[in-house]
Amino acid sequence: MEKNVLEISEVFKAQEVLKNVARVTPVMGPTNLSEDCEVYLKAECLQLTGSFKLRGAYYKISQLSDEEKRKGVIACSAGNHAQGVALGATHNGIKSLICLPATAPLSKVEATRNFGAEICLVNGVYDDAHNRAVELQEEHDYTFIHPFDDPKVIAGQGTIGLEILSQLHDLDAVVVPVGGGGLISGVAFAIKTLRPEVKVYGVQAEGAPSMKVSLEKKEKVRLDGVKTIADGIAVKEPGDLTLELISKYVDEIVTVNDDEIAASILTLMEKQKMVAEGAGAVALAAVLYNKLPVKGKKVVCIVSGGNIDVSILNRAITRGLVKSGRLVSITFDLADRPGALAEVLNVISGLGANVLSVVHERASNSTDVTGCILQIDLETRDQAHVDEIMQKLKEVGYSVKRSF
Amino acid sequence: MEKNVLEISEVFKAQEVLKNVARVTPVMGPTNLSEDCEVYLKAECLQLTGSFKLRGAYYKISQLSDEEKRKGVIACSAGNHAQGVALGATHNGIKSLICLPATAPLSKVEATRNFGAEICLVNGVYDDAHNRAVELQEEHDYTFIHPFDDPKVIAGQGTIGLEILSQLHDLDAVVVPVGGGGLISGVAFAIKTLRPEVKVYGVQAEGAPSMKVSLEKKEKVRLDGVKTIADGIAVKEPGDLTLELISKYVDEIVTVNDDEIAASILTLMEKQKMVAEGAGAVALAAVLYNKLPVKGKKVVCIVSGGNIDVSILNRAITRGLVKSGRLVSITFDLADRPGALAEVLNVISGLGANVLSVVHERASNSTDVTGCILQIDLETRDQAHVDEIMQKLKEVGYSVKRSF
Repeated sequence: MEKNVLEISEVFKAQEVLKNVARVTPVMGPTNLSEDCEVYLKAECLQLTGSFKLRGAYYKISQLSDEEKRKGVIACSAGNHAQGVALGATHNGIKSLICLPATAPLSKVEATRNFGAEICLVNGVYDDAHNRAVELQEEHDYTFIHPFDDPKVIAGQGTIGLEILSQLHDLDAVVVPVGGGGLISGVAFAIKTLRPEVKVYGVQAEGAPSMKVSLEKKEKVRLDGVKTIADGIAVKEPGDLTLELISKYVDEIVTVNDDEIAASILTLMEKQKMVAEGAGAVALAAVLYNKLPVKGKKVVCIVSGGNIDVSILNRAITRGLVKSGRLVSITFDLADRPGALAEVLNVISGLGANVLSVVHERASNSTDVTGCILQIDLETRDQAHVDEIMQKLKEVGYSVKRSF
Repeated sequence: MEKNVLEISEVFKAQEVLKNVARVTPVMGPTNLSEDCEVYLKAECLQLTGSFKLRGAYYKISQLSDEEKRKGVIACSAGNHAQGVALGATHNGIKSLICLPATAPLSKVEATRNFGAEICLVNGVYDDAHNRAVELQEEHDYTFIHPFDDPKVIAGQGTIGLEILSQLHDLDAVVVPVGGGGLISGVAFAIKTLRPEVKVYGVQAEGAPSMKVSLEKKEKVRLDGVKTIADGIAVKEPGDLTLELISKYVDEIVTVNDDEIAASILTLMEKQKMVAEGAGAVALAAVLYNKLPVKGKKVVCIVSGGNIDVSILNRAITRGLVKSGRLVSITFDLADRPGALAEVLNVISGLGANVLSVVHERASNSTDVTGCILQIDLETRDQAHVDEIMQKLKEVGYSVKRSF
């Protein structure tokens, strides 16, 4: 009989090892986020280091031999894995070296350093940092901690599956973000082993669908490029082990686009008071935008992490407000005469929208040489309200278009 | 013997009533937020309706007579109390009418409506809405649900104290936001009754210190005005009952300013992935900015709510970044000649700061008629980094000042 790459006993062992290290993060719910199904959230953004990555990294490091521990570990990451490895190594009393591209956000570099890692900033992009990490690993005989394609790492992430089963009874489905596939491999393995009737769905970003494409082609596919606000799952290529486990244990993988992700980040902030990064919001996005057959079901979405740069968060909020019809920017091609601006503002205030900003300039590319361009950003109630405003402005005779 | 206004049995009863309604919110920690003491967070921002107010409002409503329930309830609030009353009434199957000032943010009005309340928008400010609510109450014989000065409401909020004691052992102190005083009255009463050795501290906004002033004067003081980003605790006057309970059970009340609150909102978002409103961040702010004698202690800060408008949140993030030295805006009085801008940017990039925005304009109030004004916003590491940059720019010979 073929030997399994992973045994459920290893996931339980990981749970034991993580007992006094990782937080048992809460499952929040039932929420009223969807009218179609009962949504619960596994708030892994509240995990130490701000993401689930601590679990796999810590467990992997804890299982190294004394000799390996003495030599220390190395990893390459600009994000969650870096922090997980740093804290995991520090807790185990061993040295960690993290290679990051020099362009990584200051906040992430500082956070990783604060968890006790030595930082090696490498000029260039992620691949350059990765190559340097491999060089250093060979030079010093460090142990390389892979972010996902490792049975111990996967067993660590699988502890989330065990927790969900003990925290919530009678669930129908678990929805899991997918980048390299480490999280969903562990979760799906644990859940399908213990409760095979529970569905496990994966969600990727539309701009980084490497696992979905690989499953469809039944072989590992490397994408030329990836582009998404969900940087935590912007992975060009799945792992061998994760692809194998996902083929076997996951029911379906779907994708969501950046606008859907941004709107879900906003929903999590406003309605659930949770800060999610892009990758952390994709599972909820898949449910809210009806990508999955979960109508009437009891569904747990894993909010995998909350490490989002505040400037990106600001942009995600703006996009989310636009997508949900609560922010609109309207450009007017206006006659340049006294009172024209006041008239527009009167019409708008009569429609119950709040003006957020006004830019009115003459030296601009108006269609009419005697005209001027006016741009107004408005706070609105919803998409219907936006439509009503645009309709009314056109009826009154203005030449308008939405800038966003 | 004088009859107590509140009995501990009533707080336990409230806990029983709230069992299947309110969430038992998690206590997160230990965190590494402070180097001086062990900080835990009672995450009441994760409560249904986004704040603790549900507890008191629900319990109060549940205890009304059938006759009172039949007539319905009324409240005046632009914020958390409105949502608590709305959900509390809807769960109890009774009608609620909420008076709000017409200037209240759309998002809060919609949220309150979505919890099932009828909304009465009143032109003017809070006081006008309050007066209208009193009129309507008298006209229709509704029961007025006071936001804090009511023993049943206070008993409901006190359930947070019971939860903290059962969730965390050996704690030394609990730090609680204070507006009208309902939350801290309930929490302090429960904790001092059951564990009198645990300290209970209150925190108000510097711009709304009504309870602190009233305690000092030993009588209820009404402030002329209040001004703070922590709108949830911007209360002009304490309650009679809350003032009495706080005099008896609270160890000390301190204040924090808006910059400290904004920085704490940012800290909660970035390090704990929690969305806190201003009022929800004051307890942590008091600990982080050393307002309290808690060195070496095990301290629980109550994060009382997370209902913050996203536009306010954006502004709080900006202020928080400035306060923590991670964002600086520098204004240059610059010679208007080719290459001047490029030179400045070279100096800055050599100092390891990221440029976020550049505004360069000639038609401006430069001190020199041949000069121009340049404003650059930079992302920086910390206060020391900002100081280093300013120092260096002056050394090189630029005329610079910080805009913020």
